[in-house]
Amino acid sequence: GLTMAPLAGAANLPRLRWRMVTSWPNSLDTIYGGAEDVAKYVSQLTGGRFRIRPYAGGELVGGLQVLDAVSADTVEMGHTASYYYIGKSPALAFDCTVPFGMTTRQQNAWQMQGGGNELLNKEVFSQFGIMSLPAGNTGVQMGGWFRKPVPDLKSLQGLKMRIPGFGGKVMAKLGVNVQTLAGAEIYPALERGVIDAAEFVGPYDDQKLGFYQVAKYYYAPSWWEPNAQLSVYINNKRWASLPRQYQDALRIACAAANWNMVAKYDAKNPPALKSLMSKGVKLEKFSNDIMTAAQKAAFEIYDGLNQTDPTWRKIYGEWLKFRNMEFAWAAADQLVYESFAFPQVPLKDL
Amino acid sequence: GLTMAPLAGAANLPRLRWRMVTSWPNSLDTIYGGAEDVAKYVSQLTGGRFRIRPYAGGELVGGLQVLDAVSADTVEMGHTASYYYIGKSPALAFDCTVPFGMTTRQQNAWQMQGGGNELLNKEVFSQFGIMSLPAGNTGVQMGGWFRKPVPDLKSLQGLKMRIPGFGGKVMAKLGVNVQTLAGAEIYPALERGVIDAAEFVGPYDDQKLGFYQVAKYYYAPSWWEPNAQLSVYINNKRWASLPRQYQDALRIACAAANWNMVAKYDAKNPPALKSLMSKGVKLEKFSNDIMTAAQKAAFEIYDGLNQTDPTWRKIYGEWLKFRNMEFAWAAADQLVYESFAFPQVPLKDL
Repeated sequence: GLTMAPLAGAANLPRLRWRMVTSWPNSLDTIYGGAEDVAKYVSQLTGGRFRIRPYAGGELVGGLQVLDAVSADTVEMGHTASYYYIGKSPALAFDCTVPFGMTTRQQNAWQMQGGGNELLNKEVFSQFGIMSLPAGNTGVQMGGWFRKPVPDLKSLQGLKMRIPGFGGKVMAKLGVNVQTLAGAEIYPALERGVIDAAEFVGPYDDQKLGFYQVAKYYYAPSWWEPNAQLSVYINNKRWASLPRQYQDALRIACAAANWNMVAKYDAKNPPALKSLMSKGVKLEKFSNDIMTAAQKAAFEIYDGLNQTDPTWRKIYGEWLKFRNMEFAWAAADQLVYESFAFPQVPLKDL
Repeated sequence: GLTMAPLAGAANLPRLRWRMVTSWPNSLDTIYGGAEDVAKYVSQLTGGRFRIRPYAGGELVGGLQVLDAVSADTVEMGHTASYYYIGKSPALAFDCTVPFGMTTRQQNAWQMQGGGNELLNKEVFSQFGIMSLPAGNTGVQMGGWFRKPVPDLKSLQGLKMRIPGFGGKVMAKLGVNVQTLAGAEIYPALERGVIDAAEFVGPYDDQKLGFYQVAKYYYAPSWWEPNAQLSVYINNKRWASLPRQYQDALRIACAAANWNMVAKYDAKNPPALKSLMSKGVKLEKFSNDIMTAAQKAAFEIYDGLNQTDPTWRKIYGEWLKFRNMEFAWAAADQLVYESFAFPQVPLKDL
């Protein structure tokens, strides 16, 4: 049936204007596009009554101040990567990625159907007066750009590499001279040889920043970012003030934006890799001794935090159990198919 | 800012009641749950004004009559798997899965960011007066239940196996005696030895149907269903009659439901596999000679259709190009990580 009678509920829905600060330059249509998707979907879903305006990093607050800004209610919401804030609480990394952690679908399964999102909001984000919703993912990233080959563990000794977060902590344990640089500083530092290597995201984003012009060796995989989830942060008081229908709109918009970003990366990375290789980029794989040593170093860090950080301990056991179940199941089925099918198409045929 | 003034637009949104027929028993909370999610989200997003009621297969129309029912406007919409209807047009399989085709994320990337959904709606679904939106995915399925091991290609000769769709066509080329049975008929046929093998979905759904009690050998992977996308079908005239805001709600609800189902399968399959193995199920892998022969047979079928079926030809080239790009990129990065990380957790530790 269909009636045109107006509804009291709809008429009472407020006009809202919210600001969403992000950590991204708006030149990255993938990752900044995730914030734009959330805003667009919420507007579409509410007939334009609830409008969210995204801001590039630095426009209202610095790109790494998103958590602080939402926590302090300077802005209503943000779009960022939780591992930027592991200095405040290492467990925030579980909301984004950790070295040798879960892949994109596994991370999403833990968040949405494995109790992960509830656990993180209850035990971690509540400490900052905010909540987090998954709202984008880059997929597994690339291991970055190197001016010279790094064929083995020994070749990492003293290497000056730009790599943030837990990946940097692991690299430091392997003897790397870890550098912290903002995205815009990477290219000139690589060009002048101030650093020997840098990681960013993957072929599509990396090509835009031009790293291939100053470092020819492109390594796979980013064992430190087997997925990288981006999150919408919402101030808890602002969330509580929303009508239920707007909460639902925001939650469903984030879920849709989450996977639209994955689809975008998956569609755009292959032609970008093809383009990079036509420009002389050498695709390399990290050696087994590097991968093995890095994994050992990563779990030493996790075990240490489990002794010293009560918030970490509340998440880590649950996370590890879910990860291990996912790995065993994926090895039993998905990986069997992929190992047969994927390598049959050579990169040169891209 | 926040004002409470009523909006003309909102007040004019109609109350709608739509019916959504499905192909699923409502005992499968995963796959039928996808239809329920779409209905729930749309209701939440419209303040209950646009309500969709899902029906289990057989309630209003038979489980394999969803396309016909939506095409004929018997009901406004449906939730089904497009490969059920390859007898009408083989190209419908691209909306769900084909043997040795794309995995879940790749399928979604093609549909949402690679032009696949537009292409399928324009060239295939328009012939039936309907449109399709991705609204769920099982992930890669399992290769099914066998009463005896099938260690090599020779052992498939004359094997009586329940396997529908293109998978069945490929198996027939390999010498399998292909059987067509509805889901509910599989268990008794396996039990009585009327069939030697049957495929269904994966650990969580399969366990519910009890196949492990009558066939102990559980094979991986389902090379014939490396993903299986479920779709919402909407009658084109009904879609055109919707206010724009309801079209957006339906589209965004499907996108969110699509990935909630993937997360559900990814979270529920590992403990189900653990449970099955504790009941004596033997996990096996298809041999390389079976996989290789099956792939050859599959592409012979595709190449044949490319000669004879104009609709198939409009999709296949685009699809194959996208698939090959995805495979090469995934082999270069994602597979390197997964091959290192996943096998380290033995199934016995599940």
